[in-house]
Amino acid sequence: MIIEDYLKDQATYVNTLVSTYLPDVSCEPTILHEAMCYSACDGGKRLRAILAMEAAAIGGSNLEGAEIVAVAVELVHAYSLIHDDLPCMDDDDLRRGKPTNHKVFGEAIALLAGDALLTYTFELLSCLPKKGVSWELTVQVINELAQACGSGGMIAGQTLDLQWEGKTPCIDVLKKIHRCKTGALIRGAVRCGALVGEASNQQLQTLTEYAEHLGLAFQITDDILDEIGDAKVMGKPQGSDEDQGKQTYPAIYGLEESKRLAKVEVDQAKAHATKLPAGERLVQIADFVLGRSF
Amino acid sequence: MIIEDYLKDQATYVNTLVSTYLPDVSCEPTILHEAMCYSACDGGKRLRAILAMEAAAIGGSNLEGAEIVAVAVELVHAYSLIHDDLPCMDDDDLRRGKPTNHKVFGEAIALLAGDALLTYTFELLSCLPKKGVSWELTVQVINELAQACGSGGMIAGQTLDLQWEGKTPCIDVLKKIHRCKTGALIRGAVRCGALVGEASNQQLQTLTEYAEHLGLAFQITDDILDEIGDAKVMGKPQGSDEDQGKQTYPAIYGLEESKRLAKVEVDQAKAHATKLPAGERLVQIADFVLGRSF
Repeated sequence: MIIEDYLKDQATYVNTLVSTYLPDVSCEPTILHEAMCYSACDGGKRLRAILAMEAAAIGGSNLEGAEIVAVAVELVHAYSLIHDDLPCMDDDDLRRGKPTNHKVFGEAIALLAGDALLTYTFELLSCLPKKGVSWELTVQVINELAQACGSGGMIAGQTLDLQWEGKTPCIDVLKKIHRCKTGALIRGAVRCGALVGEASNQQLQTLTEYAEHLGLAFQITDDILDEIGDAKVMGKPQGSDEDQGKQTYPAIYGLEESKRLAKVEVDQAKAHATKLPAGERLVQIADFVLGRSF
Repeated sequence: MIIEDYLKDQATYVNTLVSTYLPDVSCEPTILHEAMCYSACDGGKRLRAILAMEAAAIGGSNLEGAEIVAVAVELVHAYSLIHDDLPCMDDDDLRRGKPTNHKVFGEAIALLAGDALLTYTFELLSCLPKKGVSWELTVQVINELAQACGSGGMIAGQTLDLQWEGKTPCIDVLKKIHRCKTGALIRGAVRCGALVGEASNQQLQTLTEYAEHLGLAFQITDDILDEIGDAKVMGKPQGSDEDQGKQTYPAIYGLEESKRLAKVEVDQAKAHATKLPAGERLVQIADFVLGRSF
């Protein structure tokens, strides 16, 4: 099967998993649970979830537990998008081709839905022992994900992104923003998957390096697509980073050099993946990230 | 020592604990860590933290672990206040006698500081094993606190509170709002403390009932103080609930009947506390909640 079809099938499977594990929209207060589902249940490439499951497959244990981790990282991703889109942040009206959460449910419910998704992430992870994951590994996964999306990880990235809006582009800042804002959660997804799958220390280290290069490549291609991508395919307006004066790779390096740098990162990710038993799929995913159009 | 002095000393101790366990404000991004500390490091009665430590003392184990739980519940409380005060929620300018977080740091940083405090809560709890708490109890505490502050607990309460603003007061709704919005975290604080302290099942059950009655009493007195309290002592404007058309006990029952109902809850809380070995302090705390002026 070509990798695009595989990823599409896996994304559909992740959608089912998220719907299965999220509280039902008929739970009171229904408006809150509807808002949670609106942003979490349907959408995106599900790359973080897929990476978590692929990383778990390297170790090969607790694959049902890895599905919980996969859902958890998607819930964190969904919460971060809801809050990022709020008027006091990036003030975006469109996400994945539909109106942003606050455009549908209002700002207050959107804010609370984000809070609830983040909270539920940790409730869900605390249920890992029901899937046979040890208490100790469960605590390690919670620690890992909390660090990835906390004030030294994803939220640090979002803070820097806001602080440096409209300022002269600076490569050191840009790298830090990308490493934190996008990279930390991709790295966390891979590491949490690997922990649950009981990868060896050596495998965990190799997967971590894979994830760090892949995460940077992903964000560089994101910057490129924001500048030249098809708004219809991406589901959000093109050029919004530039309009908001964001720090991006094309703004600093230009388009062609940014493409080259993305390829350098992907090549490094692939070099790490090839060291792993059954790392072929991770190689293909890295190629997909470089060639993606959405 | 009279209970007021004891609680004041304990609150000071909790302030020290929070400052100790929160990331230093010199950590990058400093603005984010300053905003987190601004709302978390100094303030309030620290009742939830004190209850967690008192509940742990009933079982008597892992008292250092109980301090981590105490900090965790205060971080959750601080995050919820930052988000509640935002313009899209209650739009409050003053909290504990100082400008609200977003008035000082702006809405975007306030939102992120709240997110970061919530995330850090779970990172901190995942460190309980370093204080001798078992992996299994650590997972149980994380599950308990996530449920308490999630979409079936505190966030459900906040959602209902918003939805029913300005509508005809309704006693069933009011009780549900209070049980979720304030009660769930107080209950969660007591139960998490009891779990870490390794209380027996019977003690955990008794402490839970104590916490449920105390939580309701606390919220009724909060409603009363909002109507008749001294703004200077409380550190926020008086009458804001009424101005916002909130569902409150005085709005439904009037002041005198509300006071009587608070006393009924406190008496029930005390009846449960007296069943516990060394429950005297919990009895005194219940009396304090009834008589408090801030």
